[in-house]
Amino acid sequence: MFYKKMVIRSIFYSIIFINVVLCYSGSSANAINKNVIFPTVKHNGPLKVSIIGSGSWGTVISKIISENTQRSKIFHPIVRMYVNEEIIDNEKLSDIINKTKENVKYMKGMKLPNNIVAIPDIDKVIEGADLLIFVVPHQYLKTTLSEILKNKNLKSTAKAISLMKGVKICDYKPMLLSNIIENMLNIECSVLSGSNIASELSTESFSEATIGFENLETAEIWRDLFDRNYFKINCIQDKAGVEMCGALKNVVALGVGFSEAFKKSYNTKSAIIRIGLEEMKKFAKLFFPNVLDETFLDSCGVADVIATCLGGRNVKCATEFAFRNGQDSWDKIESELLNGQKLQGVYTSKEIYKILENRDLKSEFPLFSIIYEIAFGYKHPSSITSVLSTKKLRHIKYRK
Amino acid sequence: MFYKKMVIRSIFYSIIFINVVLCYSGSSANAINKNVIFPTVKHNGPLKVSIIGSGSWGTVISKIISENTQRSKIFHPIVRMYVNEEIIDNEKLSDIINKTKENVKYMKGMKLPNNIVAIPDIDKVIEGADLLIFVVPHQYLKTTLSEILKNKNLKSTAKAISLMKGVKICDYKPMLLSNIIENMLNIECSVLSGSNIASELSTESFSEATIGFENLETAEIWRDLFDRNYFKINCIQDKAGVEMCGALKNVVALGVGFSEAFKKSYNTKSAIIRIGLEEMKKFAKLFFPNVLDETFLDSCGVADVIATCLGGRNVKCATEFAFRNGQDSWDKIESELLNGQKLQGVYTSKEIYKILENRDLKSEFPLFSIIYEIAFGYKHPSSITSVLSTKKLRHIKYRK
Repeated sequence: MFYKKMVIRSIFYSIIFINVVLCYSGSSANAINKNVIFPTVKHNGPLKVSIIGSGSWGTVISKIISENTQRSKIFHPIVRMYVNEEIIDNEKLSDIINKTKENVKYMKGMKLPNNIVAIPDIDKVIEGADLLIFVVPHQYLKTTLSEILKNKNLKSTAKAISLMKGVKICDYKPMLLSNIIENMLNIECSVLSGSNIASELSTESFSEATIGFENLETAEIWRDLFDRNYFKINCIQDKAGVEMCGALKNVVALGVGFSEAFKKSYNTKSAIIRIGLEEMKKFAKLFFPNVLDETFLDSCGVADVIATCLGGRNVKCATEFAFRNGQDSWDKIESELLNGQKLQGVYTSKEIYKILENRDLKSEFPLFSIIYEIAFGYKHPSSITSVLSTKKLRHIKYRK
Repeated sequence: MFYKKMVIRSIFYSIIFINVVLCYSGSSANAINKNVIFPTVKHNGPLKVSIIGSGSWGTVISKIISENTQRSKIFHPIVRMYVNEEIIDNEKLSDIINKTKENVKYMKGMKLPNNIVAIPDIDKVIEGADLLIFVVPHQYLKTTLSEILKNKNLKSTAKAISLMKGVKICDYKPMLLSNIIENMLNIECSVLSGSNIASELSTESFSEATIGFENLETAEIWRDLFDRNYFKINCIQDKAGVEMCGALKNVVALGVGFSEAFKKSYNTKSAIIRIGLEEMKKFAKLFFPNVLDETFLDSCGVADVIATCLGGRNVKCATEFAFRNGQDSWDKIESELLNGQKLQGVYTSKEIYKILENRDLKSEFPLFSIIYEIAFGYKHPSSITSVLSTKKLRHIKYRK
C-alpha cells in the first residue's frame, strides 16, 4: 500500500517537474495546474522569478509574489522557490509543499498559490532566472552564493534583491549583505525591508515595506513584483539606509525588552525607540554618509522598529533575560523560548560594540553600548534607563 | 470642633500666603518650610516661575520644575501654580493642595515638593512672574489670557511657554496656541511637547520632551528649568513643528483605535503610525514651510505618536466606537469611558477635515480624511485600512 502510494506520488511530481523544465526551456506552455493560465513563454519574454529560501518570510513572500506573477505580462507566472531539503514525517519538505501547497514546517496554515514550485536543487532554481530574491538566514549567505557560483547557470543579466536582515563586520566596518551578493555574483542587488511580521502577512494584514535601490528601472520592476493592495511598497534610492535599518532594529528591541522587565512605561518605551532610531541613523551615516534621513521615517525605519519592539522575539527574550537577572545564558533562553532559533539582536549587538570600542565611539552611542554591556554580563539589566538618566544637558539644535 | 479646625487652617494658610507675598516682594527671605532653603531674593534676581493650570499634566510639571528651582541660582525656589478653584468635600482644592501637598483631584497619590504654592487668584500668580507656563485646556486659553490682560500685573519682560495640545482654526488655517499667547500678551512664547503620559511621569518613569523655541537664550532657560535626570529635554528651533506634532498626534491615534477593533496586527498598527507621521509632517509644512524634518524624529514627533497610540484614551475610545459600529455618539462613549472628559482627537480631526475640504486636499491626506469620515459617520470603521489598500502604486523617491 505504502509503495503504491509512493509510486503514484513519484509519477505525479515527475510530471510537474518535467512540465516546469519544459515550460522554462521555452518549448512548452503547458500549465502545471488547470487553475493557472500560462502565457506563451518566449526568450527575452516575461521575467522569471526565483526565491532563494523558504523559511517563514520566504514562504509568505512567495505567496505575495506569485499572486502578482499569475496575472502579469511582465513576469513569468511560475515562481521557483529553493528549499533547503529536510525530511518531515518521512517525507521531503519540497514534496509536501508541491503536493499540499503548504509549507507545513515554516508557515503552517497558509495556502500557497498553484504557480509556486518548491525545488531542492539550487541549480534548477537559478537556471534562466531573471529576478533572484535572497531570503536565507544571513549566516548561510556565503555558502549559498558559493553553490550558485560553482555552476554556470546564473544569467549575467539577472537582478537580485535581498530580504535578509543582519550585518557582517569586516575590518571594523559593517558590510551590506546586498553588496556581498553584488560582489560575489557580479549582478545588481537591491534591498527590501519593512514592518513585516511574516505570520501577520500570511493572513493579509495591511503592511508596508521599503525597497532600497540604486537604479530607477530596476526599482520599478521590483515594486511591480512585490506590491499588493495589502502590501504597499515604497521605493527609496538609499540601499544602505534601508539595509542598515533592518540590521540594527533588533538591537533596539533588546533595549525595550530589558526596560519592560522593570517598569512598564509607554513614555520610556517610546523614548528608547526614539533614541534607538537616532543611534541607528548616526551609526548608518558613519559608514554610509549618503544615507537619507527620510529612510528612517519609512516602513523599514520607524515602522519596523515599532513592530519589532511590540511583537518580536528579541523583546520577549530580553525581558526574560532581565527577569533572570542576566544569570542565564542567551543559548538557554533561546532554547527554552524559541525552540533553538537564534536571536539576531544579540549577535548584531556584539558586532556593533566591537566597532564602537575599536573606534572609541561608545559615549556617542550610549544606548547601543549599554545594551551590549547588559547582554554580555558587564552591567545589570536595570541599568538600561540609568545610562540615559544623566544630569548632562543635551545639545540645543538651532538653524544655521 | 469643625469651626475650630477651620480657624486653625485659616491662620495656617494666612501665614503661608503672607510669607509668599513678602518673599516675592523682595522684603523677606523666610522659608515656607524648613526643608526649603531660599536664596536672598533681589530685584532682577532669580527668575520667578508661575504655572497657569493645575490639571494632571500641570500638577506633574509643577513637581518637576519645583525640584529644579529648589536648588537653583537662576530660579526663585517658590513656584506659584494657578488653580481654577473647585470645592472637593467642602474644601477648596487650592487649600487641599497647600495643606496636603497633593492634588487630590487630578494627580492623586503624587506628593508635591514644599516649594509649590497653589493660588486660586490669577493676578497673584502673574504678578512679578518672569516665566509663565501655560497648561490649561486649550478651549479656556482665550478666557485665561483675557483675565491676565484685565489686570496690569504682567511683566513686559516675562517669557511664556505653552504645554497645551490642540489646534485652533481661523480662515481655514491652523493657528499656533503659542502665537495666540504671543499676540495677546505681547511676550515671547516657546512650546514644550513630548511623549509624556502624566501618570507615568508622576512616578518618575524615564521620559523625554522637546522644546520648540525661536530664541537661543530663552531655550537655555527653559531647558534648565524643565530638565531632570528622568525627564530629558531636547531643544529644537522649530516652534511650529513641535506644536503641530502635539496637536495632530491624537488624530493618528483614532486611526489606530479603529483598526485595532477589527484585526490586531503590529504591521498594520506601525503602518498607520508611519503614515500618520508622514501626513502630520505634510500638513505642518503646508502652513509652516520652515518646519524641520528632524522635529518628527524627536520626542514630540515619533515618540509621542507611539506612546499616544499605545496608551492613550483616543485609541481606547476609537476602538469602542468601532465595536459599536459607529452607532453611538462620541459624547456617549466619552461619558461612559472618560467620565465626561473630551477626546482631543475627534475635535482636531473635524478641524483638519474642514481645511482639507476647503483646499481640495483630501486625496493627499487619505489617512486624516478617512479618520474624519469614520468618526462622523460617513464611512464604516472597517474602512480604515481599505483606503490604504489601493492598487495605486506609490511614487518612487530618487535623489535629485
